[in-house]
Amino acid sequence: MFAARNVVRRLPQRSIRRWAHTQPTFNPVTEQDIARFQQILPASSILSTLAPISTPVAELSNFNNDWMNKYHGKSTTVLRPCTTKEVSEIVRWCNERGIAIVPQGGNTGLVGGGVPIKDELILSLGNMTKIRSFDPVSGIIVADSGCILEALSEYLAPHNYIMPLDLGAKGSCQIGGNVSTNAGGLRLLRYGSLHGSVLGLEVVLPDGTVLDQLTTLRKDNTGYDIKQLFIGAEGTLGIITGVSILAAPAPQASSNVMLALPKYENVLPLFREVKRQLSEILSAFEFIDRRAYELAVKHGQGRALNDEDVEGAECFVLVETSGGKREHDEEVRLKRFRLLCNILTRTQKLNGLLESLMEADEPLINTGVLSQSPAQFSQLWAIREGITEAVSKEGKAYKYDISIPVASFKEAVDKTREQLRSKGLLRDDAVKHVVGYGHVGDGNLHLNVVAAAYTPEIEAALEPFVYELVASYKGSISAEHGIGVMKTHALPYTKNPTSIEIMKRIKALFDPKGIMNPGKVLE
Amino acid sequence: MFAARNVVRRLPQRSIRRWAHTQPTFNPVTEQDIARFQQILPASSILSTLAPISTPVAELSNFNNDWMNKYHGKSTTVLRPCTTKEVSEIVRWCNERGIAIVPQGGNTGLVGGGVPIKDELILSLGNMTKIRSFDPVSGIIVADSGCILEALSEYLAPHNYIMPLDLGAKGSCQIGGNVSTNAGGLRLLRYGSLHGSVLGLEVVLPDGTVLDQLTTLRKDNTGYDIKQLFIGAEGTLGIITGVSILAAPAPQASSNVMLALPKYENVLPLFREVKRQLSEILSAFEFIDRRAYELAVKHGQGRALNDEDVEGAECFVLVETSGGKREHDEEVRLKRFRLLCNILTRTQKLNGLLESLMEADEPLINTGVLSQSPAQFSQLWAIREGITEAVSKEGKAYKYDISIPVASFKEAVDKTREQLRSKGLLRDDAVKHVVGYGHVGDGNLHLNVVAAAYTPEIEAALEPFVYELVASYKGSISAEHGIGVMKTHALPYTKNPTSIEIMKRIKALFDPKGIMNPGKVLE
Repeated sequence: MFAARNVVRRLPQRSIRRWAHTQPTFNPVTEQDIARFQQILPASSILSTLAPISTPVAELSNFNNDWMNKYHGKSTTVLRPCTTKEVSEIVRWCNERGIAIVPQGGNTGLVGGGVPIKDELILSLGNMTKIRSFDPVSGIIVADSGCILEALSEYLAPHNYIMPLDLGAKGSCQIGGNVSTNAGGLRLLRYGSLHGSVLGLEVVLPDGTVLDQLTTLRKDNTGYDIKQLFIGAEGTLGIITGVSILAAPAPQASSNVMLALPKYENVLPLFREVKRQLSEILSAFEFIDRRAYELAVKHGQGRALNDEDVEGAECFVLVETSGGKREHDEEVRLKRFRLLCNILTRTQKLNGLLESLMEADEPLINTGVLSQSPAQFSQLWAIREGITEAVSKEGKAYKYDISIPVASFKEAVDKTREQLRSKGLLRDDAVKHVVGYGHVGDGNLHLNVVAAAYTPEIEAALEPFVYELVASYKGSISAEHGIGVMKTHALPYTKNPTSIEIMKRIKALFDPKGIMNPGKVLE
Repeated sequence: MFAARNVVRRLPQRSIRRWAHTQPTFNPVTEQDIARFQQILPASSILSTLAPISTPVAELSNFNNDWMNKYHGKSTTVLRPCTTKEVSEIVRWCNERGIAIVPQGGNTGLVGGGVPIKDELILSLGNMTKIRSFDPVSGIIVADSGCILEALSEYLAPHNYIMPLDLGAKGSCQIGGNVSTNAGGLRLLRYGSLHGSVLGLEVVLPDGTVLDQLTTLRKDNTGYDIKQLFIGAEGTLGIITGVSILAAPAPQASSNVMLALPKYENVLPLFREVKRQLSEILSAFEFIDRRAYELAVKHGQGRALNDEDVEGAECFVLVETSGGKREHDEEVRLKRFRLLCNILTRTQKLNGLLESLMEADEPLINTGVLSQSPAQFSQLWAIREGITEAVSKEGKAYKYDISIPVASFKEAVDKTREQLRSKGLLRDDAVKHVVGYGHVGDGNLHLNVVAAAYTPEIEAALEPFVYELVASYKGSISAEHGIGVMKTHALPYTKNPTSIEIMKRIKALFDPKGIMNPGKVLE
């Protein structure tokens, strides 16, 4: 639900089509409610166009609209509590009064999960920014849900810990929103999902009850792990007010290498080999197809390889290692890459190894470039991270953030291209490119269809084709962005009727009046 | 719920006190039911003392009694389905008929969760042993829930993968039982809990519906993560029939070192330093107090250190590293330990390093012994793993498997000892030792009180004292063994009323008739 680095600068308008509010009617916030909120909160924590607050509408704009300016709510009132008790009292009141609530974190989501559909009350967690505790021995940090992800990272840095997740939106997104959306991001391959690293939560339930499961235990086998339900529930089951999370020891060095592969089929054997060899120091394995690489270069994202190297390559892989000391990483990696690489250059240190790198009988790669400085490290990442921007400069992009088995990545891209070709749409004035890139290590493919313009023909060719394709792999229509309001209609492509039925019952159990973020996740 | 290596050979009899069956009455299995089961299953899959099967009672003994011979059921019937469809049909029938079911895996639990309380039907998963798929690229394996953990490990080994969990009971325990009990074990520090590594489940719900969430995706953000509820539910919400789990790349080498610490207070700084320095190659950090070490040596578990080294030590720490190549591990570890160690010997290779090891200004350890061979590696582990056996040879042990903040380990042991002293019970004919050992890395303390005999006085001094102590740290009364039937009465010491209330509602939602493993987890 949150923007990974540079992901989806602009989304196709067609996605807005499912905006109809299918929930029961809720009561609007009235002046009577404002009077009650004034008993709960200081004046500075209330924004409302209603009397006696009478905030100018424009001041609510950043809360009513998402950062892409794609989803637009009409809420009259934003409350910004500072404590769990205040949240609890607000929610209790709203539950009694039948007022719908949208919990809002950093408002950096991509699927409209954090903004109102109509005039729901916005409960912003931005004022809840206390770090409640940190244990430098275990690495467990407990924080208010409104803490900015980057602020937590900065807090941990002097203690030699890092947050187990990292996102492009880290400067704005909040840890409570991260947990509510089960944010994936750039460290998932290495540190796993939040279902593993979140140890405890404090949640205000839809009736105002505070559920305190804010333990700081790595192991606790005492019954159902209820907190897991709130991880990825996008605020529909309650409002997360506190998070206990296991930070990871900071790696002492990171390195990366960009590899050019002669053919797509080599990605999987290479991934397997890299994973086997690098084991625990492998922290990213991102792939980029030829066209995506060229678009990144064309639109000014720099280049890692010379023309000759690129010429013979069908796709590229960016491998990152983290951990241990720099010398060690390089030494180990280079030793291990000697069967994989023909050329690995740019450093005098590595010259001695180049001969051995030529020894492979059936090289999986044509060439590779190893970063030798933090600047080069960033430069290699810029190519991968710049693809989204490059794609958006190239045309109108239909973007699919899907999880499918790694072995089916190429097939999914090929089938989509074939589908468009069979419809006569693969031509310069319709679909210009079908590109694939993404987190191979996570099974997360970013499938982008770059068109001259958004057209009903292309959309009809792509949907439900892509969703059906995803379903045929038992894949996920949303690997990391969530459902929000954007994909509720597409949920059945990933979740079977039994699963959706159970989700609905869980929703009804926690939120019988349906006041909590209505119209999100479930239609 | 499962036995970690050598854990709890014998449990105090007092734990049996809460055996009253507090659930509503269920219907016994009748000959009419047997006739129905014969339509669902082949004759070889049915054991029953009822006609026309008429199995001798003795043949049901291994299913009716747990491996410790502590919990005893009186079931007439054991069904051993081979497929999910068979499980589904059995459960549907039992739900209609009001017959209670105990799902049973390898029956290696420690808290009586897998055996009947009365005459519940036993549904054994032992015949469901197919490995459904394995993807060597992603490392994701999908298997029937009855697969033995060790069999899965052996299947993965040639592919250079390992299961993300390991237990002493691995030769008997089943993956479905592991997941149902959220088994911890020996790899948790390194690979995290099953909430992170289990990617999908297939579950037969209490009404017979098959919930298929058996995806093989690392990332799937499409609504509530329902499968998490079954991880650790101990079979009370449904029967796990299939598991999709992320295997870990096999480390290429493991090493360990036994360190002697002059004082207990050094454990935490040492842990922090080791964690910081070894980072991702640290795979275990186990601590053993002086008395526990001596008991292990006394009862024939070998010794790592000479008398002089032991003399000045208040406690010991066993550090294990895994990953990378052996040379690398040792080199890195030794470089990094030079500030920690005064003596680190036994190998010519290391002689050159010994001088630098003496350099520390304020050494955290007195001495250390590094394993130099697989035999020595096992020998060091034997000391740690042998404590339980040694303790049981020394006397009657009151054993507590608790999670508390690492910083409070020493305090918990001290307070317990002080409690016993204040009651006049710390004497040779009452409580002989209060020892602490366990997984520092996981926050899991094994607190053992070794007595001459089980007595009401000692028990009254310990309970609810220890549970209250755990609660005061916001700890867990069961770090890894689960609740089963043994600790249902103690659940409120770890879970607050709101959490227990939600657990009860979740139970009622999935299992309104309460037929699924009644009397377990919730009273």
